[in-house]
Amino acid sequence: MEKDLTVIAGRNPVMEALRKDLLISRILIGEGDKEGSIVKIIANAKQKGIPIKRTSNAKLDSIMSSHQGVIAYISPIEFVSVEDILQDAKDKNQDPFIIILDHIEDVHNLGAIARSAEAAGCQGIVIPLHKAAPVTPTAVKASAGALLHIKVARVTNLNDTIDYLKNEGVWICGTDMDTDTIYYDANLLGPLALVIGSEGRGMSRLTAQKCDFSVKIPLKGDMTSLNASCAAAIVMFEALKQRDLKG
Amino acid sequence: MEKDLTVIAGRNPVMEALRKDLLISRILIGEGDKEGSIVKIIANAKQKGIPIKRTSNAKLDSIMSSHQGVIAYISPIEFVSVEDILQDAKDKNQDPFIIILDHIEDVHNLGAIARSAEAAGCQGIVIPLHKAAPVTPTAVKASAGALLHIKVARVTNLNDTIDYLKNEGVWICGTDMDTDTIYYDANLLGPLALVIGSEGRGMSRLTAQKCDFSVKIPLKGDMTSLNASCAAAIVMFEALKQRDLKG
Repeated sequence: MEKDLTVIAGRNPVMEALRKDLLISRILIGEGDKEGSIVKIIANAKQKGIPIKRTSNAKLDSIMSSHQGVIAYISPIEFVSVEDILQDAKDKNQDPFIIILDHIEDVHNLGAIARSAEAAGCQGIVIPLHKAAPVTPTAVKASAGALLHIKVARVTNLNDTIDYLKNEGVWICGTDMDTDTIYYDANLLGPLALVIGSEGRGMSRLTAQKCDFSVKIPLKGDMTSLNASCAAAIVMFEALKQRDLKG
Repeated sequence: MEKDLTVIAGRNPVMEALRKDLLISRILIGEGDKEGSIVKIIANAKQKGIPIKRTSNAKLDSIMSSHQGVIAYISPIEFVSVEDILQDAKDKNQDPFIIILDHIEDVHNLGAIARSAEAAGCQGIVIPLHKAAPVTPTAVKASAGALLHIKVARVTNLNDTIDYLKNEGVWICGTDMDTDTIYYDANLLGPLALVIGSEGRGMSRLTAQKCDFSVKIPLKGDMTSLNASCAAAIVMFEALKQRDLKG
């Protein structure tokens, strides 16, 4: 767990953070705590779309003492909308080049992917609000600060976002070991959103179906997959190469 | 710290592990401990080339209780020599394709790089014995088990290894942000050893000088470097692409 200054513990401090509209990436609440100000905190957090997770008091103890059953992670970054990312591409007179993280769970992978995306010239990354690595201080550190430079959009439903991007003329490229197309044989030019699947399960079924096309990375050894951030980097930089060679 | 079954604590257990010639990746010794059986442990470990690190007793306490001032990490893998890696390439009728880690310090990066190397068809990786991430159970886990499949050579002096490989007809390719050659413009065919610099400082000066050539990955954003495992993956898979397209 991330022991960090940007962890807020205790009922009043967390309520105060909610009132001040601080960028809370998630709230952990002890399994037994269901009464009093906890109810208010949950209602307020739900209204703001902040993920809430029930966890054991032992786990809360391990993060910070005197938590009174509630701990909030304060996010150091400001989130944007997917529209903002497209607008940024337009302002820069660039084709949109966006990374969609289909439930990446490891904050180090989130950080490394954000770092690669920023370095590859992507205008933004899209992450789901739920069941995904939150933008914690550890993620920011793992990104070498890239998460403070690149635009990040948090969305409740990735598939709705993909539909929106398709409507806006962006091609959706999935990454999938079961496809026939090798990443360097695909045309990765033009407006592109690259979907990176989660560490264990890859892309979700529905998301995979929504992709305009998918690419795979050929593997030669016993391993059946790469680290998610390495796979993402390989395909991102192939797209950058195609853009550089064309431009 | 890795809390793992393959951590051995206490003077007699560690001495016994040394006697049995178990694969010890490193030994931690409490700062104050300089007498009695500790002297024997240090002498024996030095003789076997096992890295020893002095650390606070508080840190030892955090890894395992009842450590008596000494903790050993047992490596789950068997190390080979660089000659063995070249022989493996010969046996497979392949050009040598080797990854040299110039003092990668993070076990997660070590694991991710080993995973990519195995998947890219490299015959082995070379890591320095000192001042580098050891092959711990955490590294093996981060490699998704790849460290159990790919040959790993530990060497005391990387530069001697590079000289040896050059003598054997292997081209040494460095990765360096200060070079002019973009990775995809370089010829990465034939017998190749790819040197990956450390997270903070890149390649050491002498190692960089020994490289036959170096390549860089063009970056478009504010970031001045990529995560080491992502950078390694990008260049490795470019080399694999060139091999696949030629073959």
